[in-house]
Amino acid sequence: MSDETTERGQTNGDGGAWAIIMAGGAGTRFWPASRRDRPKQLLPLAPGEDRSLLRATLERIAPVVPLERVLVVTSAALADATAAELPGLPRENILAEPTGRNTAPCVGWAAAHVRRRDPNGVMVVLPADHHIGAPDAYLSVLARSLDAARAGALVTVGIQPTRPETGYGYLELGELVADGVHRARRFVEKPNRQRAEQFLAAGRFLWNSGVFVFRADTILAAIETHLPGLGAQLRIYDQAAARGEESTVVSETYASLPSVSIDHGVMEKADEVLVVPGNFGWSDLGSWTTAWELTEHDDRGNAAPEDAVLVDAESCFVRAPQGKLVALLGVSDLMVVDTEDALLVMPRNRAQDVRAIVDALKARRDPRL
Amino acid sequence: MSDETTERGQTNGDGGAWAIIMAGGAGTRFWPASRRDRPKQLLPLAPGEDRSLLRATLERIAPVVPLERVLVVTSAALADATAAELPGLPRENILAEPTGRNTAPCVGWAAAHVRRRDPNGVMVVLPADHHIGAPDAYLSVLARSLDAARAGALVTVGIQPTRPETGYGYLELGELVADGVHRARRFVEKPNRQRAEQFLAAGRFLWNSGVFVFRADTILAAIETHLPGLGAQLRIYDQAAARGEESTVVSETYASLPSVSIDHGVMEKADEVLVVPGNFGWSDLGSWTTAWELTEHDDRGNAAPEDAVLVDAESCFVRAPQGKLVALLGVSDLMVVDTEDALLVMPRNRAQDVRAIVDALKARRDPRL
Repeated sequence: MSDETTERGQTNGDGGAWAIIMAGGAGTRFWPASRRDRPKQLLPLAPGEDRSLLRATLERIAPVVPLERVLVVTSAALADATAAELPGLPRENILAEPTGRNTAPCVGWAAAHVRRRDPNGVMVVLPADHHIGAPDAYLSVLARSLDAARAGALVTVGIQPTRPETGYGYLELGELVADGVHRARRFVEKPNRQRAEQFLAAGRFLWNSGVFVFRADTILAAIETHLPGLGAQLRIYDQAAARGEESTVVSETYASLPSVSIDHGVMEKADEVLVVPGNFGWSDLGSWTTAWELTEHDDRGNAAPEDAVLVDAESCFVRAPQGKLVALLGVSDLMVVDTEDALLVMPRNRAQDVRAIVDALKARRDPRL
Repeated sequence: MSDETTERGQTNGDGGAWAIIMAGGAGTRFWPASRRDRPKQLLPLAPGEDRSLLRATLERIAPVVPLERVLVVTSAALADATAAELPGLPRENILAEPTGRNTAPCVGWAAAHVRRRDPNGVMVVLPADHHIGAPDAYLSVLARSLDAARAGALVTVGIQPTRPETGYGYLELGELVADGVHRARRFVEKPNRQRAEQFLAAGRFLWNSGVFVFRADTILAAIETHLPGLGAQLRIYDQAAARGEESTVVSETYASLPSVSIDHGVMEKADEVLVVPGNFGWSDLGSWTTAWELTEHDDRGNAAPEDAVLVDAESCFVRAPQGKLVALLGVSDLMVVDTEDALLVMPRNRAQDVRAIVDALKARRDPRL
């Protein structure tokens, strides 16, 4: 615990580092492991890892941010499960959104909380459901980003691309402004395959990781400029908080906030954004295919529990509860995800379409959703 | 209960119909539903049927053979499970083989039992693990066969083939000797594809179903002629039974009996065998593919539990415990067999190779065998 902390959940307003973990996602692409009441971030989806993604996210930043300065933003429906997953976290550090309104309201509301408790606070915004293969490299990127942010910059962390990925937005690097810190030349929408290959070849395009670092007052000022409606509402939340009525006001008004991402709503419009390039084994764990890619394979490309029986099986992915034996015979490129009450079988190249199954379950009000 | 029965398990030796159900099989091709201690015949594998194959076999012949005259031959290891599956069957009607020695010793030993209890008894020999789609037609074939057998014939039931099957032996029909009863011209080994097609086209070749009908004394005489070693041993069992020592003598000597089928050892060598052709929706339920074929399909060829979610799935087979949701996405010709503790996934055309999985489990002494 940092000596800057005076009591549980309170700091002395010294401009310390805070973490905002965005943990409200639904993660339907990981059904049947993920469920409506137990989505992706609450599951141990990373290879060789028995902590949930959320808990791993929190514990990974512990050397930089003590628990008292971690805020977790999630949905009201997930607040209890989130609290149970993070037993050391003060309950008041869980911000429960009455309804999901994308990341700008989430970041803005969290920033308002930080500023109230620490007017000079600087905050690292982290998705709860990413995997980091090299935590030390990650922490040094965050440290560098925090330094830049303390000076008043809006900072985003960019990932060195390893493939011509068409599923992510990109950042184009501008000039170097400090050791390992660049100006962002521009944000680029998800490219097509050809452009993605050009980006990879050019070497100056990074993946937009969704990790942002800025002072609370900096991002709130930027919100006032670029999303003035949201800014005005956040001031109303501050006033309500001073009267002890924040949760009532939030529950009555949150749904009216603009549903926009912090990227589109603020970062892309800001005059200057800095980028800290990172190379720390990042993965957004976007689908079962990513899980297969990250898991160690046998010499025929299978990633399966040790006791699986694989006969003439190639490039398959198997996930099953402890004690459940899975046998594959004569199949290739197949994904088998088994749980106590539901089983999914699909080819690897259909992992993006798991939502179709979830939609079918929704339509028939199946409890195994 | 028949009025010929004087007390439980005893009859008055009037030459009644007996049934010998051969229930010692291992059925490894139905893993993971079938297990070493719960093989195929103890499972409800027939479509739309919640009785085990064994119980269905027994109940199907109830109109012709009362329970007291049904003998079930199984392995010592399966005797208790078999008794539990057939609660109405007198326990002394379960003959437990100390070790499997193919069907000739099994039929011979059962025939000795019948002859002791009913010297004029006529017996229907039935595999425990077949499916009969048209039970009434089946019973009338058995009635016709029993009539022929009472007169002293060795009778076999032949199945009208519906496809050029290469997995069964065939019988060639000879001249008609009575209504619906032919002489067997010859037994034919499993043919290759070309011969199987010729057999189908010729119209006078039937599948050898493994159902036989004969008087106990007739088959015992035939065994004395064609398998004299077995015949001598069966006489020793009769003498031991008279002293109340049969089970001891059987357990000491059964392993030394010749391991030969009743087809090869006796029927094929007999001077005359009669054939009763049948057409009663017979299936040997030889593999999961057969189970798929027999089950009703949806309009895309899938046979799956009602609550399965099938998205872009074609010609698939799904079997799972009650309450377990199976979702298939973008797969064809796939078989998914799920149980509480083991799951098998394979293409339909590999169903004959399930033994490879079972062998792997055996090799590593896996309890889920």
